[in-house]
Amino acid sequence: MKSSATTPFPERVRRALASAQQQGLAALALVPGPNMRYLTGAQMHASERIILGLMAPGQKPVFVVPSFEVKRVRQDMGLDAELLGYSDEEGPQSALARACDALELRGKRVGAESLQMRLMEFWRLGEAAGAEVVAGDDIFADLRLCKDVHELAAMKTAIERTETVLHAFLAEIRPGRSEKELAGLLRFALMQASGEDVSFSPILGSGPNSALPHAAPSDRLLQKGDLIVIDCGMFYRGYVSDITRTFALGEVKPELRRIYDVVLEANRAGREACRPGVAAQSVDRAARAAVQKAGYGEYFTHRTGHGIGLEVHEPPYIAAGNAVPLRPGMTFTVEPGVYLPERGGVRIEDDVAITADGVEVLTSFPRELLLL
Amino acid sequence: MKSSATTPFPERVRRALASAQQQGLAALALVPGPNMRYLTGAQMHASERIILGLMAPGQKPVFVVPSFEVKRVRQDMGLDAELLGYSDEEGPQSALARACDALELRGKRVGAESLQMRLMEFWRLGEAAGAEVVAGDDIFADLRLCKDVHELAAMKTAIERTETVLHAFLAEIRPGRSEKELAGLLRFALMQASGEDVSFSPILGSGPNSALPHAAPSDRLLQKGDLIVIDCGMFYRGYVSDITRTFALGEVKPELRRIYDVVLEANRAGREACRPGVAAQSVDRAARAAVQKAGYGEYFTHRTGHGIGLEVHEPPYIAAGNAVPLRPGMTFTVEPGVYLPERGGVRIEDDVAITADGVEVLTSFPRELLLL
Repeated sequence: MKSSATTPFPERVRRALASAQQQGLAALALVPGPNMRYLTGAQMHASERIILGLMAPGQKPVFVVPSFEVKRVRQDMGLDAELLGYSDEEGPQSALARACDALELRGKRVGAESLQMRLMEFWRLGEAAGAEVVAGDDIFADLRLCKDVHELAAMKTAIERTETVLHAFLAEIRPGRSEKELAGLLRFALMQASGEDVSFSPILGSGPNSALPHAAPSDRLLQKGDLIVIDCGMFYRGYVSDITRTFALGEVKPELRRIYDVVLEANRAGREACRPGVAAQSVDRAARAAVQKAGYGEYFTHRTGHGIGLEVHEPPYIAAGNAVPLRPGMTFTVEPGVYLPERGGVRIEDDVAITADGVEVLTSFPRELLLL
Repeated sequence: MKSSATTPFPERVRRALASAQQQGLAALALVPGPNMRYLTGAQMHASERIILGLMAPGQKPVFVVPSFEVKRVRQDMGLDAELLGYSDEEGPQSALARACDALELRGKRVGAESLQMRLMEFWRLGEAAGAEVVAGDDIFADLRLCKDVHELAAMKTAIERTETVLHAFLAEIRPGRSEKELAGLLRFALMQASGEDVSFSPILGSGPNSALPHAAPSDRLLQKGDLIVIDCGMFYRGYVSDITRTFALGEVKPELRRIYDVVLEANRAGREACRPGVAAQSVDRAARAAVQKAGYGEYFTHRTGHGIGLEVHEPPYIAAGNAVPLRPGMTFTVEPGVYLPERGGVRIEDDVAITADGVEVLTSFPRELLLL
């Protein structure tokens, strides 16, 4: 175990369980993923072998893990926890029952992560514990909403390295190369600079494909006159970057140049709307108003942004209907886009952090249209 | 849409729904992942935005997807389906309700993938449909158990390319390099040869770390006398390879040489036990008997193997208690291991396919101990 005196994990668990108690929950259940990493330091992957942690106030957390993983999990965790192993032959059910009994969960309400927990864990936990599993998402989300200085520093490094890669990558973009080939090169460069991994498969959409916000890179060859949307990021110490820029391969049609200017203005309006105390949706409203004013409202088909941290999509969502007030330490994207079917699309995405009195824009890659 | 005349998807859906009907299920629910890919051709990723497919006998399948993904999903799918889009602002609930109403699922039983479906989808499906969601895992698993010639060909290519990479990689292994550095190099080489991705993060455990079956590569520097377990694979056309070999960095202690020979014998015994009609667990038993006979039974801490296909772990599991008879077209790993805590471990993993009258071993990398 890492020394818990030097890790943030025990304090994070304490805060999580205080929220759980306020909501009348007897315990919290954790499966592999970002919340487990945030609360324990352990990086596990969900598989067909159950890994499940249970935490209750005033008691030592209990984790059920495959026997052959016990040693590795113990090394990985920055938290004093009981580890119950099970072999492939016996399966997890008895260890789960012992874990639930140890924490006296029978008939109690247990908060779970509805974006992470699968039916497999849910059903087995119900069988083992007779516990009532309910959504505890807001507890985990609130915990992770405001980043501390270490988290911000990791994200800044991820962003800086991503921008360095993107600058160098521009030299590779030329007519006749395919989206797939270029996206592969970009991915390699990002992984190398990250030392960990990309935070998602790079999106590289050219010409008509730039109008598909989540385009999988295709065999299409780049041509003069294309817009090229590049959306990419990496992990650094577990934290993500996420940046999009749109480039022009030589001169583009006036209409495409026009939507570029509209999106650039929407991006600026979105960034300028960011400050503590305003609702998340007001940033969306500011960016969307700029697009609507220019007459392209129906072609801005997604929300303006999403939180970033241990995940590339996490709260706060910068979307209509989200009245959550922005607070210092919140980190999210501002990424308006306009997509004209069959013709071309533009997205300009920055990463920002709310500060005590305004906003820090973490991305610094030029925003004016670059003609390659 | 791809022409359904040339795709296997409509026939796969027909088979899935025939099984569902036999089990008294009104429909099957699909979320992004291997089953969605197998049944529709669409490669989607689970995110906080719900993507959910519903299929019922005699009706056109209905998929609920974010609006801005509709066009991409339509291009990706090799199946004639109704796509219901929803915007970030409205959310998926109304589209889900319309999908459930279209297939008349109220009060009916719907089979779901318990290893894929999350509580988010489960709860929303319950709210939308008033349907009873039950485990349909065996339907999906049975469907994918026996591979056709196209699937086998893809896996053979993945394996061949992985072995080529592994051969070239041996020249990189020398004292003083770290596990992390080497694992990073291996990952790059695998991705380049794959053109898609690694099927999992390569495992590279040296010295005492070779005794951790799922070791995350560490900063440990390789030393003379180490055993080095390397477990890696890639995707080709969506299908995986998965191969482990254990190498020696110069001469190793007699005890480590001894366990190598034991595992090699267990691997041979396991492979030789593979043929149509025998139970999956009898392959485990054959491999385990060889290890037990040598007195190391307690150090063989995991099952002997797992199925491979679109996933790197899938049925059939080669484990005690699994009485499923092996059938032609089943593909799985045979990977006994012996792990002596703090001292070192050995695993030798091959990929095999059951044939009409025996077994084809798909991996051909040498199995005798190589001294690097």
